Amino acid sequence: MSARLFSFVGGTAGAWRVTNVSTLVGEPLAGVSRLDVVSGTVSSPATGASWVLRGLTSNERYVTRPEKDQLVARQPATGRPDATCAALIPIRKNASWWGLTQDERRQVFEDRSRHIVTGLRYLPAVARRLHHSRDLGEPEPFDFLTWFEFAPSDASAFDQLLAELRASEEWTYVDREVDIRVVRAKP
Amino acid sequence: MSARLFSFVGGTAGAWRVTNVSTLVGEPLAGVSRLDVVSGTVSSPATGASWVLRGLTSNERYVTRPEKDQLVARQPATGRPDATCAALIPIRKNASWWGLTQDERRQVFEDRSRHIVTGLRYLPAVARRLHHSRDLGEPEPFDFLTWFEFAPSDASAFDQLLAELRASEEWTYVDREVDIRVVRAKP
Repeated sequence: MSARLFSFVGGTAGAWRVTNVSTLVGEPLAGVSRLDVVSGTVSSPATGASWVLRGLTSNERYVTRPEKDQLVARQPATGRPDATCAALIPIRKNASWWGLTQDERRQVFEDRSRHIVTGLRYLPAVARRLHHSRDLGEPEPFDFLTWFEFAPSDASAFDQLLAELRASEEWTYVDREVDIRVVRAKP
Repeated sequence: MSARLFSFVGGTAGAWRVTNVSTLVGEPLAGVSRLDVVSGTVSSPATGASWVLRGLTSNERYVTRPEKDQLVARQPATGRPDATCAALIPIRKNASWWGLTQDERRQVFEDRSRHIVTGLRYLPAVARRLHHSRDLGEPEPFDFLTWFEFAPSDASAFDQLLAELRASEEWTYVDREVDIRVVRAKP
């Protein structure tokens, strides 16, 4: 399978303890006690798994070279020892979004919603990895899975980042969103 | 599975008789006598199948609204009775291409290579359906599979279209390309 593919397994096992599952819009996801983040596909999920969400990392779809250079200079890696808080935020966008052309989507995404500029203000506090789910061969319930990691002291800044994005024009196209908060489980 | 997923099965069965398989760059594909175009995944290919290529249709990545409007106004559907010739052209682009940002890829694709404008000149003669293979969960040997249909009288125009695209800067990023020509098999 693709080395860029990841599975997020919600259930009773995994390295992350779930502290909250909030559905912002659309159908809820079942509440679970643990989250496992697995490289590749989980062909037979462990007993107790309620759901498996899959997505893969890919080339960026909107950033320009100057934006990319700023992101690369400032974005931290995942797996920092002090980043013991994390969030998995799966979203789906509606048919109107996917019917827009590339220039129209870019206008909403950055020119009017400031998605990239907003995210840059929270670097290097918040590590981020975006996974695409829409073009897998098997249909997935979400279009994107974004994984964020941050230190407990940056949790309120992370909430502020989400509040800014959710207030943007881009988010009017989001028709399903769940916010899953986790902390690293004690070994 | 996704309703946007298609499988192209090269072997000894299928509605299209293969007249030529040419490798332009990179590793060849095995020569076959028939091509089958199947909606969805082929989980157990028929006896005699040499290869199965999979890809799915998706949102456009480069066209602007004015370009899209021109394409929609002029592009024919697949399946026209007189379009008895077709071509399957799988290509892969190299890491340099995928390392470009969106604005850089658009500059190469259209501003410098005129991919969209060139294609528009061959409408409505040539029907086209683009399939994305790079972000499927299982790795595929190509990034894109493009399927073209046209009448025998438009075959030389189609060759001219390919010659123009292959001479473009965009094609310097193509590191694997095979050109599979087929005609509709007699029932």
